[in-house]
Amino acid sequence: MRDVVVLGAGLHRFGRFPDKSLPDLGREAIENALDDSGVPFKDIEVAYVGRVLAGMGAGLSVVSEMGRTGIPVINIEMACGSSTSAFREAYLSVATGVYDTALVVGFEKMQRGLIQIADQKSYQTVMGLAVMPASYALQARRYMADHGATAEMFGQVSVKSHRNGALNPYAQYQTAVTLDDVMNSRSIADPVTLLQCSPTTDGAAAVVICAASKAAQYKSGRLAHVAGWATGSGKYEPTGDSAEGEADTGEIGRLVAMAWERAGLGPEDVDVTQVHDAFAPGEIFSIEGLGLVPVGEGAQAVWDGRTEIDGDIPVNTDGGLLSRGHPIGATGCAMVTEIVRQLTGEAGPRQVKGGDAHVGLIQNAGIGGMNILVLTS
Amino acid sequence: MRDVVVLGAGLHRFGRFPDKSLPDLGREAIENALDDSGVPFKDIEVAYVGRVLAGMGAGLSVVSEMGRTGIPVINIEMACGSSTSAFREAYLSVATGVYDTALVVGFEKMQRGLIQIADQKSYQTVMGLAVMPASYALQARRYMADHGATAEMFGQVSVKSHRNGALNPYAQYQTAVTLDDVMNSRSIADPVTLLQCSPTTDGAAAVVICAASKAAQYKSGRLAHVAGWATGSGKYEPTGDSAEGEADTGEIGRLVAMAWERAGLGPEDVDVTQVHDAFAPGEIFSIEGLGLVPVGEGAQAVWDGRTEIDGDIPVNTDGGLLSRGHPIGATGCAMVTEIVRQLTGEAGPRQVKGGDAHVGLIQNAGIGGMNILVLTS
Repeated sequence: MRDVVVLGAGLHRFGRFPDKSLPDLGREAIENALDDSGVPFKDIEVAYVGRVLAGMGAGLSVVSEMGRTGIPVINIEMACGSSTSAFREAYLSVATGVYDTALVVGFEKMQRGLIQIADQKSYQTVMGLAVMPASYALQARRYMADHGATAEMFGQVSVKSHRNGALNPYAQYQTAVTLDDVMNSRSIADPVTLLQCSPTTDGAAAVVICAASKAAQYKSGRLAHVAGWATGSGKYEPTGDSAEGEADTGEIGRLVAMAWERAGLGPEDVDVTQVHDAFAPGEIFSIEGLGLVPVGEGAQAVWDGRTEIDGDIPVNTDGGLLSRGHPIGATGCAMVTEIVRQLTGEAGPRQVKGGDAHVGLIQNAGIGGMNILVLTS
Repeated sequence: MRDVVVLGAGLHRFGRFPDKSLPDLGREAIENALDDSGVPFKDIEVAYVGRVLAGMGAGLSVVSEMGRTGIPVINIEMACGSSTSAFREAYLSVATGVYDTALVVGFEKMQRGLIQIADQKSYQTVMGLAVMPASYALQARRYMADHGATAEMFGQVSVKSHRNGALNPYAQYQTAVTLDDVMNSRSIADPVTLLQCSPTTDGAAAVVICAASKAAQYKSGRLAHVAGWATGSGKYEPTGDSAEGEADTGEIGRLVAMAWERAGLGPEDVDVTQVHDAFAPGEIFSIEGLGLVPVGEGAQAVWDGRTEIDGDIPVNTDGGLLSRGHPIGATGCAMVTEIVRQLTGEAGPRQVKGGDAHVGLIQNAGIGGMNILVLTS
């Protein structure tokens, strides 16, 4: 497989834009990514598009804003993990030599109540477990019982997230909040309060990738390389105790191990991380699942400020899903964008490690699976 | 790129199945494809799923019917071309050595009036040109004026299609119709009548592909190989007369040339073809675009019986979209299934060339682009 670099990345600000169309949002993100990469649109050989709720053919309607050059435009859907899935397909198409340059785009205009779950009649749906805040809340309660964490520790995730979002001109929410604000906001599914839920967001993000061997003609300087990846879905495996049969072991630990193996790196090497904090407890579950802190110590790590921009394991430096926003098709590409900014020393007031950040980790999950990416500079 | 074979293919019958769920339809198609391939599900390393109208995460809910083995399940959408797009992604993932075995699935339950067009406000939509029968009818009228074709010649496509469908136990319509039946059916968009429109259909289709070097452990005998492919979207290019500026040259001629170049073959080598006849005139436009007959001679070729099973350029031997049916996410995989049956001599009463068919051509189009595939045996 060839070395692949992320040459450029760009966003349309996340927020609510009722008067803008998907092509309006997508065009601005694509133009920003192309400008950042130095690649003219005519050199793009394929586009992979992550989107969920947009109608069929939405990818072409957005990409065509840049011109009709006849390239394949492939729409990819993996719910909230759609645009890292698009990124992986694009990455494989370049790494394996099918194309030299590829555009990845993610966009969404979220509408309350619009999301369809594939199987409306499953027990999970009927029992309320497919209602996302309820699922996170049940896991959070179990975590509190198992590890002695407090509800405030989950709330602190959102405090940190909003502080980071206030430093990000592309974030939906750019105002810091206090722990009191978070804990006193409306209860959604105890202990998850309103300010611990990702908001309803419109937005777009785009990334230009290129074979490393072709990069010099477009851009020089510090570049982010794709060092590792893994993608997969939940797996039922025999448990240690044969009397218990099989259990769904989830994806995160198994997949991150695959990504580290491909990258030749490990969790001790990580400088900056983006995780899928659709709800505040998610950040804690993710940093444990990724092996950044031992199981049971994630809540305390957040409480102690270790995941802050100036902490030892900075997480969601751009505000994450909670503050930057979560237009589900765009989220994965926004995660890539922030990691690229951090690894190239262009994250401004959000920059970690004084600009000396060289390994970034991304975890993006959706119904259908999870993607892990490792970028290096 | 490694040689890749289609080891197995399978369908759930196309038709209307209001009491069946998507997992019901998909599971039967997957089981049939796995049985045909000799590959156990546990050996499948990745699944690519074509679907359009199903809710998010639908791919996993269907593939999980076979077990939760933790594989990536990637949902692909390119409207009516979705499952050949899924096939191409799966093909690239195997041809480039990322995986050895891949499952491709397409499914859909069509519901009248459900299809969303991405951009509801485009002039094309406002002017009625995004209404598919109207678009085909306008092109058909122009074709009649340019080439002296008759409305009956378009109708004859449907007569042939239904005759083939009557030989296909998986087709939605298995009853022959007369030219009078077709011409006297309700006018939809003159000259397109009801029996010249693909019906509302539920269905599923699945294909198992494998690196040729790994095939022998699963299956022996005559196998279908992926010899060529092309995918892309419409392209605006300078016209010959500079005063006219640029024109949308469409995809079909440009893409089929790319596929032939990859395959090292040409239109004179084709034994059997599947084209995207969403409406009857489509078959005529497609066989001309693919270079199987000269431009302007397609309607006469149909009228003369050249596209029949026993003709010199058999087309849509399984009944095509018009009679087999067109559950949009499943159509591409159904096309692959029929070509595989023809190239392995297993097409029964629909078999062309007395079983001596070795080159099959597929054209599957949707909003967002077109896929061309060349299979050989």
